[in-house]
Amino acid sequence: MVTTNLNPPSTTASTTFNLKSYLAKRATQVEAALDSSLPVVYPEQIYESMRYSLMAGGKRLRPILCLATCEMLGADSAIAMPTACALEMVHTMSLIHDDLPAMDNDDYRRGKLTNHKVYGEDVAVLAGDALLTYAFEYIATQTQGAQPQQVLKVIADLGKAVGANGLVGGQIVDLASEGKAIDEETLTYIHMHKTAALLEVSVTSAAILVGADVDVIERLRRYAQRIGLAFQIVDDVLDITATSEELGKSAGKDVAAQKATYPSLLGLEASKQKADQLIEAAIAELAGFGEAAQPLVAIAQYITARTH
Amino acid sequence: MVTTNLNPPSTTASTTFNLKSYLAKRATQVEAALDSSLPVVYPEQIYESMRYSLMAGGKRLRPILCLATCEMLGADSAIAMPTACALEMVHTMSLIHDDLPAMDNDDYRRGKLTNHKVYGEDVAVLAGDALLTYAFEYIATQTQGAQPQQVLKVIADLGKAVGANGLVGGQIVDLASEGKAIDEETLTYIHMHKTAALLEVSVTSAAILVGADVDVIERLRRYAQRIGLAFQIVDDVLDITATSEELGKSAGKDVAAQKATYPSLLGLEASKQKADQLIEAAIAELAGFGEAAQPLVAIAQYITARTH
Repeated sequence: MVTTNLNPPSTTASTTFNLKSYLAKRATQVEAALDSSLPVVYPEQIYESMRYSLMAGGKRLRPILCLATCEMLGADSAIAMPTACALEMVHTMSLIHDDLPAMDNDDYRRGKLTNHKVYGEDVAVLAGDALLTYAFEYIATQTQGAQPQQVLKVIADLGKAVGANGLVGGQIVDLASEGKAIDEETLTYIHMHKTAALLEVSVTSAAILVGADVDVIERLRRYAQRIGLAFQIVDDVLDITATSEELGKSAGKDVAAQKATYPSLLGLEASKQKADQLIEAAIAELAGFGEAAQPLVAIAQYITARTH
Repeated sequence: MVTTNLNPPSTTASTTFNLKSYLAKRATQVEAALDSSLPVVYPEQIYESMRYSLMAGGKRLRPILCLATCEMLGADSAIAMPTACALEMVHTMSLIHDDLPAMDNDDYRRGKLTNHKVYGEDVAVLAGDALLTYAFEYIATQTQGAQPQQVLKVIADLGKAVGANGLVGGQIVDLASEGKAIDEETLTYIHMHKTAALLEVSVTSAAILVGADVDVIERLRRYAQRIGLAFQIVDDVLDITATSEELGKSAGKDVAAQKATYPSLLGLEASKQKADQLIEAAIAELAGFGEAAQPLVAIAQYITARTH
């Protein structure tokens, strides 16, 4: 048997990995999949309201993490696309309901009027409910190339990540902590549930769909937990160190609201260090995946790069 | 082979079928299953809020239809119990969100303060979200004795029954119809989606879990659609003919609110006749199941019995 190797070694590519173009390409794919997931039919108003928020842009970080994990594990990302879309539907639901007058009472998100400002509070509540419901339905009906048992596990894990022991639990503790002095443990609980839980299922769901080992799933879980927490710490740091212009939103909001943050509990330098350590630990979990882990490594590095 | 028949023929039982005691026994089973489905853990407030509405009583009609169908088809009702609980979680979510100030703005339900009056609007929105999420998670994690593919189909059908093309779609059209003259087609759309869709999946889900034929599933679907619509017509009729004391709620509300109802569109007698015909047609769908269909037949008869 004669083996030829006329191509340059694949490690060459690692020096040229371009996160920005990777994210842009992936976001375009996700936008197209989301667009076709939800056609407008009768009764049009509810579909228009769902689409208004679902198609309102954003980084599409959760779907991209899901697709990138799928490919890192050597599978076709098409297996994970319905789950990737469902993650964005759930994330969108949480934003619509968060913005309601009874919650954060926000009039604008990403420079556009919030859902309830356009469609009314009643429709916004229902649009969130419908998106949340559709996320589970979409995974169940659209996933191809995975075992039914694995699809069920993804549905179960997504439910856990969103419900009272996940995203909703984090929001409840956050609401109960408003204007109160809280400790680091409570602050970490809030962020691990409000933010990290959905990032976690974004990567573990892809691993489950492709039939990865438990060890791989747990490595990915730790990766996501760490980047999720680091992301929040960096947000807290930027609220103090960045200008409003740099942030694209009001700076100093947390201090003004006397909100407990990592800098207020640990100090600014210790917070930056904690974020750096978390990112380093997150990347360490990916050591065994070699070059295939480039997108996930670069996404992790990007998080702390924002503070430097 | 010697066959003995010392027991009275089973048809004897049909003359003594007692719907009231059947419903009471089933409701007790469902209450126990719901109670153990949702223990209170940290953060307690969200679990207490979810439980407050989930355990607030009611007829438990959806879970009972699900369990009764399962047994009618010769299977152990334990297979359907997680789905039965999930149906009640979804129904409860729809009541919590319906009662919100932005929707129907109700202070009381079943003689108790509504969820948002006790826990606040923010927690009530989140309790609904968590119950809806938990419904899908609960089916995925707790169902035993069914094929994973069948469990996925139940999740998909439940999603369809609840989402923009189901319950939420019915609510949207109902909201959009307030204070407007609507035709019978629109009124039927509202009821088929707001009420019948969840009843439909209550019976079809049990049939799917036990691996019933498509023909059986379709018969059950038509049964549920017909009793669902009849139920609403009877509600409209009772709003005119019954006293508030008989109803246990204000009578004449629909007329006062100038709400389109079947009696306002078809007249009182034609409405009663339509309800009777629907119930007759619903029961006809069960002809092939013999005596095993007694509970479903009796539930259908009970609906129109209220007008006589």
